[in-house]
Amino acid sequence: MTVAPLRIGIAGLGTVGLGTVILLEENADIIALRAGRPVEITAVSARSKTTRARDISKYRWYDNALEMVNDSEVDVIVELIGGSEGIAHTLCKAAILAGKPVVTANKALIAHHGCDLAKLAEQRKVALAFEAAVAGGIPIIHALRTGLAANKFSRIEGILNGTCNYILTTMREAVAAKAEGADFAEVLADAQKLGYAEADPSFDVDGIDAAHKLAIITSLAYGCPVNLSAVQIEGIRSITASDMRYAAELGYVIKLLGITERTPEGISQRVHPCFVPRKAPIAKVDGVYNAVVAHGDACGTMVFEGRGAGAGPTASSIVSDLIDIARGAGQTPFLLPVAKFTQEKLADPALLKSCYYIRLSVVDKPGVLADVTGIFRDHGISMRTFVQHSRTPGEAVELALTTHEAQHAAMEKAIAAIGKLEAVVTPPQRIRILT
Amino acid sequence: MTVAPLRIGIAGLGTVGLGTVILLEENADIIALRAGRPVEITAVSARSKTTRARDISKYRWYDNALEMVNDSEVDVIVELIGGSEGIAHTLCKAAILAGKPVVTANKALIAHHGCDLAKLAEQRKVALAFEAAVAGGIPIIHALRTGLAANKFSRIEGILNGTCNYILTTMREAVAAKAEGADFAEVLADAQKLGYAEADPSFDVDGIDAAHKLAIITSLAYGCPVNLSAVQIEGIRSITASDMRYAAELGYVIKLLGITERTPEGISQRVHPCFVPRKAPIAKVDGVYNAVVAHGDACGTMVFEGRGAGAGPTASSIVSDLIDIARGAGQTPFLLPVAKFTQEKLADPALLKSCYYIRLSVVDKPGVLADVTGIFRDHGISMRTFVQHSRTPGEAVELALTTHEAQHAAMEKAIAAIGKLEAVVTPPQRIRILT
Repeated sequence: MTVAPLRIGIAGLGTVGLGTVILLEENADIIALRAGRPVEITAVSARSKTTRARDISKYRWYDNALEMVNDSEVDVIVELIGGSEGIAHTLCKAAILAGKPVVTANKALIAHHGCDLAKLAEQRKVALAFEAAVAGGIPIIHALRTGLAANKFSRIEGILNGTCNYILTTMREAVAAKAEGADFAEVLADAQKLGYAEADPSFDVDGIDAAHKLAIITSLAYGCPVNLSAVQIEGIRSITASDMRYAAELGYVIKLLGITERTPEGISQRVHPCFVPRKAPIAKVDGVYNAVVAHGDACGTMVFEGRGAGAGPTASSIVSDLIDIARGAGQTPFLLPVAKFTQEKLADPALLKSCYYIRLSVVDKPGVLADVTGIFRDHGISMRTFVQHSRTPGEAVELALTTHEAQHAAMEKAIAAIGKLEAVVTPPQRIRILT
Repeated sequence: MTVAPLRIGIAGLGTVGLGTVILLEENADIIALRAGRPVEITAVSARSKTTRARDISKYRWYDNALEMVNDSEVDVIVELIGGSEGIAHTLCKAAILAGKPVVTANKALIAHHGCDLAKLAEQRKVALAFEAAVAGGIPIIHALRTGLAANKFSRIEGILNGTCNYILTTMREAVAAKAEGADFAEVLADAQKLGYAEADPSFDVDGIDAAHKLAIITSLAYGCPVNLSAVQIEGIRSITASDMRYAAELGYVIKLLGITERTPEGISQRVHPCFVPRKAPIAKVDGVYNAVVAHGDACGTMVFEGRGAGAGPTASSIVSDLIDIARGAGQTPFLLPVAKFTQEKLADPALLKSCYYIRLSVVDKPGVLADVTGIFRDHGISMRTFVQHSRTPGEAVELALTTHEAQHAAMEKAIAAIGKLEAVVTPPQRIRILT
C-alpha cells in the first residue's frame, strides 16, 4: 500500500525558505518514516526566480504566492514571506479558508493576527502551526502544547533575540578582556558587518522581535488571547560598557529577557534588559543562542536552549510542524480553542515590584549621596549594595547601586527626581534584576 | 455538549503515583481545557491501602491491579509499579490486549520489552506512552517524537541519573572547598541519608538506570529496536577526589553521561563517566538536575535541562501523556512503527576512538614516565598533557595525563600493560574525555 504524500507549497525563498527546501530534500527519507508518508514540495513562490543557489526548477513556480492556494496539488502552505500585513496575511487567510493547513515562521503575523487566524483554522478544521516563529529551532511551542501541558506556569522567561544576545555577550567579553570597542554602538556596527544584525537593527535591539515571540508564548502558557500591545518593551540601546563592568562586579550578566508572569496583579508581559544572577542557567546562554526557562508547578524549572535563528534551526521547526500535519496532529493552534480563552487580568506595570540596579554619573561633591538616598527614602525604596570605584573631588564620577524590591512607579518617580539633581550629569540608568 | 472524560486507573501509589493523583486533582481545570475533556481518576491499586497521606477513598480500590483492566470505567492504565518483569509487564500487556492505552514511568520495562509492547499497541491501535521513563519532567520523548523530528542526529548525550549527578557534584564542590569527605563512599553515604540515593545504590551508581533511559532514546533517535544489551556500561564507583582535582585543574568537570552516537562503525551506546569541558552547556548542570543534549543536522545543538526525578516532574510527564491520549494523539509508541525499524549496525566498542584522562599512582623513581610513555608509543597513543604536582623520590606519587584520540582496544591494552609496571602501585584510572 502506498501512502499519499503530503504536498507542500512554499512561499518565500530567502534564507529560511531555501533552508526548508534543502531540509525536505536531504532528510526526505527520515521525514517520510517519521511522518508516516512522504512530505514533498510541489510548488514554490518568491520575489525572484533567479537569485538563488539551489536548483528549484523541478518545482512548479508561482510569481504570485496566492495562486498556490488554488493548486490542487498543494496540500499545505508554508508561509515564509514575513511581515504582519500584506501578502503574508492574505495568503495564510486564503489558505485556511480553502481548507489548507498553514505552517509559518512569521512571528509578527501570529503576534498581530494569531487569534483571528486560529479561530478561522478551528472553524475549517485545519492546522495553523508556528513552531518556527518562536526561538528558531527550540521546540518550545511543542513543549507548551504537549510535554509541559500538565503544568500551571508561574513565569516563563527567555532570551528570545539572538542579535541582542550576541551584542550583549560581545560587550561583556570585551569588557572582561579590557578590550576597546565594548560600547553598544561599536559592537552593533561590528555585528552588522558580520551579518548578525540587520542594517536597520531597531526591530531587534529595541525589543520588538522578542515582544512578538513573548506574546505568543503568553497565549499558550496562560490560555489567553495574544496581546502584543500589553507587552512592556525596552531595548538594549542604553546599555554601556560601564553597566557591563558593574554587572560583573556585582555577580550578574546582562541579558535582554522576555518575561511573562502570573503576578498577584494579573498577567505581566515585558521585554527589557535584566541583571541575571551569574549562577542562573540562562546566564550561561551566550552569543546567538536562545533559551526559554519555564517555571511549572509540577515540572519545576525547565530550560530549553539552542539556536534561535538561521536556516537550519528554523527549517527544523517548520518541518516538524509539517510532520505533525502529515500525522494528522496540530489542530487548535493555541492548544485551547480560541473560544475557551480566558480574558486574563493584565497587571498594571506601575504596580510591579522588582529589585533594581542604578548607575549614576555625578559631580563628586559632598552631599550627593545623601540627596540620592534621601530621594529613595521618600519613595519607600531601600538600597542593597553601593559601589563607587575612584573619586576625584569636583569631577564627574560613576556610582552604581542596587535596591531591594521596589514598585515600578515609585522607582520611575525616584529616578526622575534623581535625574533632576544638579550634581547628576547624565540621565540615570536603571535595569531590573531577575530574582 | 458535554464531552466524555478520559477515565484513569493508576497502578502503584508510591511517590510518583501519589504525585500523579495530586497533579490530576489540583490542575484538573487546566488539564481539562488543554486535553479538550476532563481527565479523571476512576480507580487505583497499590500494595497497601493504609500507608498514604492522601485521601484516595473516593477512587475505586483494587487489591489486584490486573482487575482494573476489566473495569469498564477505566479507559487508560497508568503503570507506576516498576520492574521490568512481573506484575508491571503483565498489567501493561493485558491493558493493551484489552484495547486500553497505557502510560508508564517504567524505564526498565520499556528498555526490556518496549518493542514487543509497542508492536502489540500498534496492532490494537492503542497508545503506549512513556515520557516519564526518561529524564523525569524533561519532555525529551515528546521532543524526539515531534519538535525535533525533522533531524538526523549525529549524537545525543545526557545526564540521565540524578543520583550520580548529585554525588559527582557534591564530590566536586567538596574538593573545590578543600573540605573533608570528598570521596565517593562518603558522599554516597551522605546521599543515602538525605534520600538522594537508595539503600542499594547499584542500579543508579553502576549506570544501569541511565542505560535503560539511553536505550529508549536511541530507539527514538535512530529508528532502531531498543537494545539494552548493546549499551556499554561503566558506573561512578571508581571516581576519586583526586580525579575531581585533576579534572578541575585541566578545565573539566566529571559527569556520568549516557551517549548514543552514529559513528562510522555503526551506532554506539554507552554510559560512563566523562571529562566534560567546563564550557560545555552540560557541564553546568549540577545536583539532581538532568539534561539531554541533542545534536541534529538541522537544529544544531539543542539542550534540555530540568528535574529528572521526583513526584512533581515525573507526574508532569505522566499527565502530559494522558493529555495526548485524551486529544487522540500518541499512536506508534516509538514514532516509527516497529515494522519500519532498521537494524542499525552496532559499533564495536573496541574500535571507538576517544581522548582519555589517565591517573596513575607510581613509586617516583627515574624511568617510570619513560616506561609509561613507551607503552603508549607501542600502542600508537600520544600524550597531550601531563601533570605531576609534588614529588618525594622513593615514595608513591600521583600523576595525571591526557591523551590525544586513541582507539578503545589500544587504550585498554596500554592500561593493562601500565598496570603491570612494578612502579605502578594501584590500578590505573582511565576516564574518557567528551569532545
